[in-house]
Amino acid sequence: MKDNVKKQYAYPFSEGNGHDKKLLGGKGANLCQMTQIGINVPPGFVVTTDACLDFLENNKLPDGLMTSVRDEITKLEAATARTFGTGTDPLLVSVRSGSAMSMPGMMDTVLNLGLNDETLAGLIAQTGDERFAYDAYRRFIQLFGKVALGIDDEKFDEHFGAVKAHVGVKADIALEAGHLKEISEKFLEVVREETGKGFPQDVMLQLELAVEAVFRSWMGKRAVAYRKEFHITTDMANGTAVNIQTMVFGNMGDDCATGVGFTRNPGTGENEMFGEYLTNAQGEDVVAGIRTPKPLQQMQDEMPAQFERLSELQNQLESHFQEVQDYEFTIEKGTLYCLQTRNGKMNAAALVRSSVEMYQEKLLTKQQALLRVDPEILEQLLHPSLDPDSRVEAIAKGLPASPGAASGKCVFDADLPEKRGGSGEKVILLREETRPDDIHGFFAAQGILTSRGGKTSHAAVVARGMGKPCVAGAEGIIVDVALRQAIVGSSIIHEGDIITIDGASGDVYLGAIATIEAHFSDELNVLLAWADEAAELKVMANADTPDAARKAHEYGAMGIGLCRTERMFNASDRLPIVIDMILANSSDDRQEALDKLLPIQRADFIELFSVMSPDPVTVRLLDPPMHEFLPTEQQLIDQVESLRTYRDVVRGRQTALSAIASAPPLPQPFGDLSEELVESVLSKKLEMLGKVRELHEVNPMLGHRGVRLGITYPEIYAMQIQAILEAAMECVSKGIEVRPEIMVPQVITSEELLHVKRTVDKLTKRFKDKPSFKFGTMIETVRACTRARKLAGIAEFFSFGTNDLTQATFSFSREDAENKFLPMYNDSGILQDNPFEILDTQGLGQLVEMAATHGREVREDLKIGICGEQGGHPESIRFCHHIGLNYVSCSGPRVPVARLAAAHAKFREKDYVVPGH
Amino acid sequence: MKDNVKKQYAYPFSEGNGHDKKLLGGKGANLCQMTQIGINVPPGFVVTTDACLDFLENNKLPDGLMTSVRDEITKLEAATARTFGTGTDPLLVSVRSGSAMSMPGMMDTVLNLGLNDETLAGLIAQTGDERFAYDAYRRFIQLFGKVALGIDDEKFDEHFGAVKAHVGVKADIALEAGHLKEISEKFLEVVREETGKGFPQDVMLQLELAVEAVFRSWMGKRAVAYRKEFHITTDMANGTAVNIQTMVFGNMGDDCATGVGFTRNPGTGENEMFGEYLTNAQGEDVVAGIRTPKPLQQMQDEMPAQFERLSELQNQLESHFQEVQDYEFTIEKGTLYCLQTRNGKMNAAALVRSSVEMYQEKLLTKQQALLRVDPEILEQLLHPSLDPDSRVEAIAKGLPASPGAASGKCVFDADLPEKRGGSGEKVILLREETRPDDIHGFFAAQGILTSRGGKTSHAAVVARGMGKPCVAGAEGIIVDVALRQAIVGSSIIHEGDIITIDGASGDVYLGAIATIEAHFSDELNVLLAWADEAAELKVMANADTPDAARKAHEYGAMGIGLCRTERMFNASDRLPIVIDMILANSSDDRQEALDKLLPIQRADFIELFSVMSPDPVTVRLLDPPMHEFLPTEQQLIDQVESLRTYRDVVRGRQTALSAIASAPPLPQPFGDLSEELVESVLSKKLEMLGKVRELHEVNPMLGHRGVRLGITYPEIYAMQIQAILEAAMECVSKGIEVRPEIMVPQVITSEELLHVKRTVDKLTKRFKDKPSFKFGTMIETVRACTRARKLAGIAEFFSFGTNDLTQATFSFSREDAENKFLPMYNDSGILQDNPFEILDTQGLGQLVEMAATHGREVREDLKIGICGEQGGHPESIRFCHHIGLNYVSCSGPRVPVARLAAAHAKFREKDYVVPGH
Repeated sequence: MKDNVKKQYAYPFSEGNGHDKKLLGGKGANLCQMTQIGINVPPGFVVTTDACLDFLENNKLPDGLMTSVRDEITKLEAATARTFGTGTDPLLVSVRSGSAMSMPGMMDTVLNLGLNDETLAGLIAQTGDERFAYDAYRRFIQLFGKVALGIDDEKFDEHFGAVKAHVGVKADIALEAGHLKEISEKFLEVVREETGKGFPQDVMLQLELAVEAVFRSWMGKRAVAYRKEFHITTDMANGTAVNIQTMVFGNMGDDCATGVGFTRNPGTGENEMFGEYLTNAQGEDVVAGIRTPKPLQQMQDEMPAQFERLSELQNQLESHFQEVQDYEFTIEKGTLYCLQTRNGKMNAAALVRSSVEMYQEKLLTKQQALLRVDPEILEQLLHPSLDPDSRVEAIAKGLPASPGAASGKCVFDADLPEKRGGSGEKVILLREETRPDDIHGFFAAQGILTSRGGKTSHAAVVARGMGKPCVAGAEGIIVDVALRQAIVGSSIIHEGDIITIDGASGDVYLGAIATIEAHFSDELNVLLAWADEAAELKVMANADTPDAARKAHEYGAMGIGLCRTERMFNASDRLPIVIDMILANSSDDRQEALDKLLPIQRADFIELFSVMSPDPVTVRLLDPPMHEFLPTEQQLIDQVESLRTYRDVVRGRQTALSAIASAPPLPQPFGDLSEELVESVLSKKLEMLGKVRELHEVNPMLGHRGVRLGITYPEIYAMQIQAILEAAMECVSKGIEVRPEIMVPQVITSEELLHVKRTVDKLTKRFKDKPSFKFGTMIETVRACTRARKLAGIAEFFSFGTNDLTQATFSFSREDAENKFLPMYNDSGILQDNPFEILDTQGLGQLVEMAATHGREVREDLKIGICGEQGGHPESIRFCHHIGLNYVSCSGPRVPVARLAAAHAKFREKDYVVPGH
Repeated sequence: MKDNVKKQYAYPFSEGNGHDKKLLGGKGANLCQMTQIGINVPPGFVVTTDACLDFLENNKLPDGLMTSVRDEITKLEAATARTFGTGTDPLLVSVRSGSAMSMPGMMDTVLNLGLNDETLAGLIAQTGDERFAYDAYRRFIQLFGKVALGIDDEKFDEHFGAVKAHVGVKADIALEAGHLKEISEKFLEVVREETGKGFPQDVMLQLELAVEAVFRSWMGKRAVAYRKEFHITTDMANGTAVNIQTMVFGNMGDDCATGVGFTRNPGTGENEMFGEYLTNAQGEDVVAGIRTPKPLQQMQDEMPAQFERLSELQNQLESHFQEVQDYEFTIEKGTLYCLQTRNGKMNAAALVRSSVEMYQEKLLTKQQALLRVDPEILEQLLHPSLDPDSRVEAIAKGLPASPGAASGKCVFDADLPEKRGGSGEKVILLREETRPDDIHGFFAAQGILTSRGGKTSHAAVVARGMGKPCVAGAEGIIVDVALRQAIVGSSIIHEGDIITIDGASGDVYLGAIATIEAHFSDELNVLLAWADEAAELKVMANADTPDAARKAHEYGAMGIGLCRTERMFNASDRLPIVIDMILANSSDDRQEALDKLLPIQRADFIELFSVMSPDPVTVRLLDPPMHEFLPTEQQLIDQVESLRTYRDVVRGRQTALSAIASAPPLPQPFGDLSEELVESVLSKKLEMLGKVRELHEVNPMLGHRGVRLGITYPEIYAMQIQAILEAAMECVSKGIEVRPEIMVPQVITSEELLHVKRTVDKLTKRFKDKPSFKFGTMIETVRACTRARKLAGIAEFFSFGTNDLTQATFSFSREDAENKFLPMYNDSGILQDNPFEILDTQGLGQLVEMAATHGREVREDLKIGICGEQGGHPESIRFCHHIGLNYVSCSGPRVPVARLAAAHAKFREKDYVVPGH
């Protein structure tokens, strides 16, 4: 009988449950809330997401839906004292999408619905404003034509442009009633031509088609791409609601206006009025960037009473929603209406600042202040900005629409960045203005530059949401897509030329400009200090050199969780010694090379320990296979080849020299080397080639590396351990508190650990005072996970190497997988995420949890963490908190993200369910 | 106070606990048992293994030990009415090693201990046999000198040989008393020269030194190597006991003899008297192969009464020990003494036959009969024998000492086979006679050939134990180690020449002779049928072609557990089509190639299913990465290079032809191809080269393979599934019962299985009657283990691919590990076994058990097995039985081993503990 319980598909704003975003969509729910707390919202109602899902499943509107809609319309007619589809005071409505998650611009909207021949006449009669009426009509025909009838925008734009050209005006507002009437008539012809039928006169049919169109747009290409990009699952939003709302008009004269506002500055977070408006315009004019709007502040002079109302509205919205609001308003003949509101999308800096200030203003608790900042967004703060010392002259200036600086090759359409960006090239998307259809171009571009539109234009809003730099409305740039070029004064930017934009200043430059790294704002430091107070997980950094350690320290790392010693070997003054060590044919020769490396490593460690003092520094002993330090076989073959050629030429030249005066010139790249020197280089290269071939491995990931190498060539680990211990003692002798930790990689059995432990013990005995340190192991083989109890008998800490563990668990070679099949697996939904970025809690997570539990069974105070790319990912951090790890370690710039994520993990621990369990 | 409880270090044979082999060693325990059941054993006592361990730990004999020894000697003096170290009826003793596990010849022995100047004189006086006494003396001096004083054997042999040469005799027995006296004196001089002291006259000191020497030999090089080879751990045997036993003499005249016997023929298992003896000789003469002994049967004529005693002894031994016995006896002046007994080492055929017959004779139960056959030994039965049709003439004939045929390069010392065998070369060890020092050469050789010694010579016994072919005492062969050659009649065999030996006939051939595979004896079939009755685990075979399936069936496989379809692709008529499929640039081109493969695969499956009917056949869909079907990059580069050269020559020739008559000749290897043809081959090769480069993977083990490939190129799996289903239907239509199973490789998530399942479902719908089959998955990634519950929701069976799983668990690439560090890991004890041969129960086993348990939680009747090398290994099979798997699948020839091991696993399930848990 349950099925027979009739579902309610439509709720008036005055009745809908404003907290049920799943059912009513975010926009609809907020309209209900606003209506119910007394904000002046044009009356309307919401058609539920349930109806949408039903429609998408059955490909027809559910039974009874249109009856409910008609009922609600009847109520609207009563409330507004207007009539729908007839009469001289016709009711016009907007039809807007609105799902549980905000997807701005991704779905369809129809405005001014309710116009037909009769109501158009009525509207003219009623307002006495023919221009207004035809303007509304032509807008309606185009939007409805596009959205509900599927007619290409360009078909309409052509006629619109032609009329403007013919009349000789640039601004839409300069068109007169007659022109707009002509345009409307042409538009009606377009509809007839394209659909073979006249424009629908039945306004309920208009409404039905519009609702269907909005429903359909949920599965539209743009919307689907957007949900994928932002990981919006059906759990989070399923289907869209439709909001049907009485139209109010900002374009009925100079006592009318329309605008959008943020309750705080979304670029800086400053508590100031922020937004733009246009007098005598409809909302779409503002966001479309067709006319350049005025800042809200200007309203204080132009419409002081309405400005007062607007201020009140802002306070009302923030104190009710406890969040910065992004709202739309219209002033119709002096009356302020709020058309919609939603949580404001802000960039990271703005979020952080507003969080701190809203706590100070007692609008939020610390926990709320922290939770409203998505950890991932802090990445933006780590974006570079332009070096203020680079004294290059800007070629153009636009609005600083989304902060950050970016350089890249200039491209003129949204498909190109996707193609080029996909291959790793950096591009800047340059457009006259952008539209929702361009969204895929945004994902792949480094930054966006438009020649038209304001700070709330599509380009600006979307770029800010993505944290990408954007300069909008740089009007000095004339874009010619057909010629694939842009003219700026006397210069021409061709497609492919490198440009730089500075979203903080609005400046545009030719060429790539030097950038400097972001520095932490005071607010960010305040916020992250709150996070550290709240979090249980510590956040360490992966850093391999003293420089990297210094940076990690600035990012707030609480120690070094992973120092990959081999990276110290790669410096150009060290590599030759390392190569000698590898080429050594005897233990003695190897020792000779190691003796040279010892003081270098020791000096590095001293600096590293000093920088991080008194925090722990975990040093991983040599891990990669030997051949990684050598050139590739092909490189060596090429080098040998050119050396031989060179030698032959040198020989010929010497012979020639000894005979006569004229000798052939020497080829590059070796310069004037003697034959002996060439021979000696050649013989070294041949030796290296032999070694490279000897060391060749079929699957180097699974080869002779880590502790296997350390056991085969015990001298290497002995040198490294000695360097660590001596460095620690040296620091202690200087009064620097240090906490070194020695970590063994690639362990599969406790026997290996014991093996290395014996070396450690032997070397420790050399010191009168035993240096204080921890001895532990990476857990980066699956077998180590299964042997955790045994390993914990020897190791004082575990560090999960989740990069290698992921490879072993999936049997995916990262390099191969990400190039060959992983994207396809993600696209087709076989795998939800890239497990190299987000810890695979369903599979690998089980092993990690098991190993952690087993390890602690044996050693209660076992210190456990993860180091690996996933350590900086909020979802992974949540899991690590859940299973009780002590720390995560990630790359330096991810440390702030991880610190905040660790606090979130703590706050949200109660409602955590391991995904897929 | 516990430490003060004095340990008993010596037990007389009449009192020792004959079941405590750990304490008394195998030999000592058996001597106690024999003594206590009334067999005529020369009296003696055992010094315990505890004493040995104490000695090895403290490097001195434990306190009180020699006092106990003296007490026991006093008892012996009383029992034999002889005096030790003095008098005219001196007590002489043998001092022999004996650990819990038999390690024949691996440790030291001293005979005739108790002789000194005084007792030598006494012995001469008492026996009136100067020759006998000096013979005993020179033997004692040499053995004691070597064993207790560490003097090189050769020092003695030189003198012995010199005297023989000087006297002009070949056989030792031809030497007279005077010669032996001269030899004894020279030997005493050797001792003085080598040790700087005279030969010890104190017989208790002799005894003490001998006991110490035996103890020390436990850690001798040979013994340690032997234990390692045969995986004898300290759990199984720890330290050696020392057996001190009254000497009896087989060399006191013609009413004396000494010999060794088996209660059954150890070469065939036949219940017949088997062994050899020498009259008037000491035991070592028989095993040393210096004189060629007579078969025991001959005793019936020569010493009928003693022969009667010997028969009784045999019956007594077998019925007491319930096992074939390998015993030593001596007849001293007509009295038969049994000197020792142990379980007889027999080859596989003999073990099997005797098991079956001992059950029939009611000596054993079926379970006992099965348990006494080590499954691993059945491998021997699968060794090839010489093709009887190969009519090559033997160049020499020896004794058929250990069955089986082998070919290889002839080598003359025991070090060489180790070196050569290690590099994969096949060698036959050819020696005049072998000694325990040669043991390492046996391990590496394919077979052993000696020119001296009998069927119980060292070479014969050791080879039989190892299941290696051996021809002993081929006296026609004259070995000259110095010249590294052997003369056989008029031929010379140089080191490195290939020879063939037939251990079943004793024939020796020049060159490599064709062999045929072993066939099952009736007894083996009986035994394996008993095993199948008892076992719970089913044994399947890995077989990829109809031929292999036929063989697997003969081996008793109960189905095909793994058919690797890609192996079907490698046949030369198919590979070009597969390459076309790989080179295809479109789905259509690929389909065209697949359409050609379909009928071929279908035909294979029809044959495969028919052969195995009605048993299941598990077909794994394509697994390896595409590039495995293509030549390597280097091969292609070489081919392209030579094709280009060829083309240039062809061009030059054509130009020349068109100009004049004489053209350059065409180079090999292409023959007379036209330029067009060469161009077309060249272009194909270039295309392949491009593809190989495109498909290159850094870690192919972890790359684009298995189901990842199947999802990327769905046409391939679709073709294979279609072929399986059509083949099944075709069989059914012919009335052949089939049970195909479709298996998906490399699965990491249930989504992949679903993906393939959809193809299966779609193809199944094409048939009017749904073909009956199972759909399942390999579990060969670690992630699959962790997702077993989900996978079992879709899969009807799991097959653990333990090769890949081992690689993933250890992060070992098998090829790289076995070449680079695994041997070192095994040698140094970091890993006990090679995990690619023996399932790693400690690590991987946990994952397998977990996955099996989780899978069955979801699907109670989930069929679970393992396929992989370890599936044929008894230890691994025990584990599989323990965790309740349904089957193991292994290579065909391992099937009999696995069948027997499965029965053993069942019998021994109660006392099974997972190693390392």
